[in-house]
Amino acid sequence: MNSLPFSQVAKRLAVAEDDVWAIHYEAADRLKAGEDIILMSVGDPDFPTPDDISTQLVSSIKRGRTHYSPPNGELELRSAIAELECQATGKVFSADHFVIFPGATGALYATLSTLCDPGDEIVIPEPMYIGYRGYIKALGIEVKSPHLNLDEDCALDVDELLAYVGPKTKAVLVNTPGNPLGNIIPAEQLASLAEALAERNVWLISDEVYSLLTFEEPHVSLLKCAKDLSNVIVIDGLSKSHAMTGWRIGWVAGPLELTQALTNYSSAALFGCSQFIQDAAAYALKTNGPYVDHMCELYRQRRDFFAERVKRIPNLDCLMPKAGMFMMLDFRRISNDVPGLVRQLLDVEGVSFVPGEGFGPTAASFARASLTHDLDTLNEVGDRLERFLAAY
Amino acid sequence: MNSLPFSQVAKRLAVAEDDVWAIHYEAADRLKAGEDIILMSVGDPDFPTPDDISTQLVSSIKRGRTHYSPPNGELELRSAIAELECQATGKVFSADHFVIFPGATGALYATLSTLCDPGDEIVIPEPMYIGYRGYIKALGIEVKSPHLNLDEDCALDVDELLAYVGPKTKAVLVNTPGNPLGNIIPAEQLASLAEALAERNVWLISDEVYSLLTFEEPHVSLLKCAKDLSNVIVIDGLSKSHAMTGWRIGWVAGPLELTQALTNYSSAALFGCSQFIQDAAAYALKTNGPYVDHMCELYRQRRDFFAERVKRIPNLDCLMPKAGMFMMLDFRRISNDVPGLVRQLLDVEGVSFVPGEGFGPTAASFARASLTHDLDTLNEVGDRLERFLAAY
Repeated sequence: MNSLPFSQVAKRLAVAEDDVWAIHYEAADRLKAGEDIILMSVGDPDFPTPDDISTQLVSSIKRGRTHYSPPNGELELRSAIAELECQATGKVFSADHFVIFPGATGALYATLSTLCDPGDEIVIPEPMYIGYRGYIKALGIEVKSPHLNLDEDCALDVDELLAYVGPKTKAVLVNTPGNPLGNIIPAEQLASLAEALAERNVWLISDEVYSLLTFEEPHVSLLKCAKDLSNVIVIDGLSKSHAMTGWRIGWVAGPLELTQALTNYSSAALFGCSQFIQDAAAYALKTNGPYVDHMCELYRQRRDFFAERVKRIPNLDCLMPKAGMFMMLDFRRISNDVPGLVRQLLDVEGVSFVPGEGFGPTAASFARASLTHDLDTLNEVGDRLERFLAAY
Repeated sequence: MNSLPFSQVAKRLAVAEDDVWAIHYEAADRLKAGEDIILMSVGDPDFPTPDDISTQLVSSIKRGRTHYSPPNGELELRSAIAELECQATGKVFSADHFVIFPGATGALYATLSTLCDPGDEIVIPEPMYIGYRGYIKALGIEVKSPHLNLDEDCALDVDELLAYVGPKTKAVLVNTPGNPLGNIIPAEQLASLAEALAERNVWLISDEVYSLLTFEEPHVSLLKCAKDLSNVIVIDGLSKSHAMTGWRIGWVAGPLELTQALTNYSSAALFGCSQFIQDAAAYALKTNGPYVDHMCELYRQRRDFFAERVKRIPNLDCLMPKAGMFMMLDFRRISNDVPGLVRQLLDVEGVSFVPGEGFGPTAASFARASLTHDLDTLNEVGDRLERFLAAY
């Protein structure tokens, strides 16, 4: 068996690395087994998908929408996205500027497959979303990472980023609003980055899956702020904003040359997405019910509550996210072994966080907390943290 | 714009080739526009998905099953598949021998990504499923193709196939029951092929998505007939058997080393499939309602009816499929320009077939007809064929 062939993709993916998810999976298993565990380690909304979206899905199935869909996605869904983007940006988009994939993960994997060969470089600021590791390993891409400045509002230094762009750089990938920091890259920075990269023939990809979950300042999409869209790609989806992680709907926005390449890829690798799920997604986008604002408001309340609770614990601090469903706990005054501390927190108190090193070295003294619980539960997490750290 | 970088994957997929789907897409557009077109060119069942499967989906959504799913798939679905395979084969399978993907296309793309690097060879007998072209181009795989003997029951010559296996061959891919021929590779041939390939450290992949749609002799899965399963991979799904093309559920069966590699791939490239669709799929498999047999019986009736109708047309003939939803029309006594003839059939009579050359050179004088219409419509197709050929 061992002598049977595997590809380089499989070999790269098989290389073990620090498993930042180990604690989460153990916690999830123990929770399922009935233990008193609070999962603070996953970005899956605690809300059910709003009922009217599900109702729409049922009606779509009843209309017989259970057949193959075009590889670039249903026209109705792509048109709904185009219309929203026309309104949001004041620019002209057609349905053909968008390609639908089973989830934003699938969308970004397809995009990077379409842009990068093994050995090519991309630039991604860190701390970054852990999931990017998977693409990078699978596709054999080299990553260069400037740091976000955690002590200065998680700021990105565009000049520093550009210094990482070299002849092998095919794309820069930013995530705004960002996971894990909840930071927002200002519109003028995105615009100048897009322009500087266009001069260098480098793509700028902006992963904006948290775009609707902002607390004070609104997010401005790269599609709106970039002067010229020829090197600009935006990834978005419904998982976070509409509590539809399990529906697997995401998309790519880009110039027609890119969306044609992505359509070819989808045709070869996936053969399209589900018709009835796309119908429900189109409905969700067109109606964009008040539940989106409601869920966003709940995340904001949780952020405020949990930040206040955390800051009452001696030496513990946190970064205030501007968006999204995560908060970074700052253990810099407490420990220089956060993975060990997170491990003990699960063992002793039954609370699971994600060690910050999973997001990059800059976050090594932090841990990511998910705001996917009600205030009572977050208060209980605060109590457990306080009790544990008092004895630490 | 033109100078922005694309990957080799995108460049290979962008290379134009004879577009065997051009006639189908034109026909589909004209049908949508209200023209009198009969689509005989696509393998999408004309049946709706059985109601009780949809009911199950609704109940799953109501139970809040709208969240992330494990990268290898829901345990309940994988267990249901394992149980069925234990019963069918008398062998021992666990849920971990199976990985769920969004459709059999996604499953096979993931499998080939996991086994083959660009420049590697695989052996696929032709005529073959057109969709294999996409994988081959995207992944940069070289294909060697022995011929199925269309005049001798579409027989595969195992010795001839093995002669194509060389040092760069990573896998052999067979499709049984096959598209477009509806042929079945006998169990003893599959078994001897698996054994011979194991000795050569080559994988044998069997694409069995038509396994439940057989007319007289049952299909015997490679999982049942192979003596040793260490180099054996089977692809299956619900699209064809349960009229669930638009649900996008397929899977891979294989040894644990492979399913681990596929889980890594799914985690990186897709982040799992929809929970509620997997719940409904598990239900569909567990109950395997009488509709599967009923649809199979309808396809058999259509085959018998259409074959008889076709054979009444002077000089026209057909191959009798043993399985599936397609029939190959034999134009060898009529034309040596089947693509031209198929083009004219759409223009003059409004009937779309797929030119056989799309499936490989051996099928160049054939065209594929889909048995996805009721008998009246198939009779009308016969009338149109007869009228057209009388004037040809």
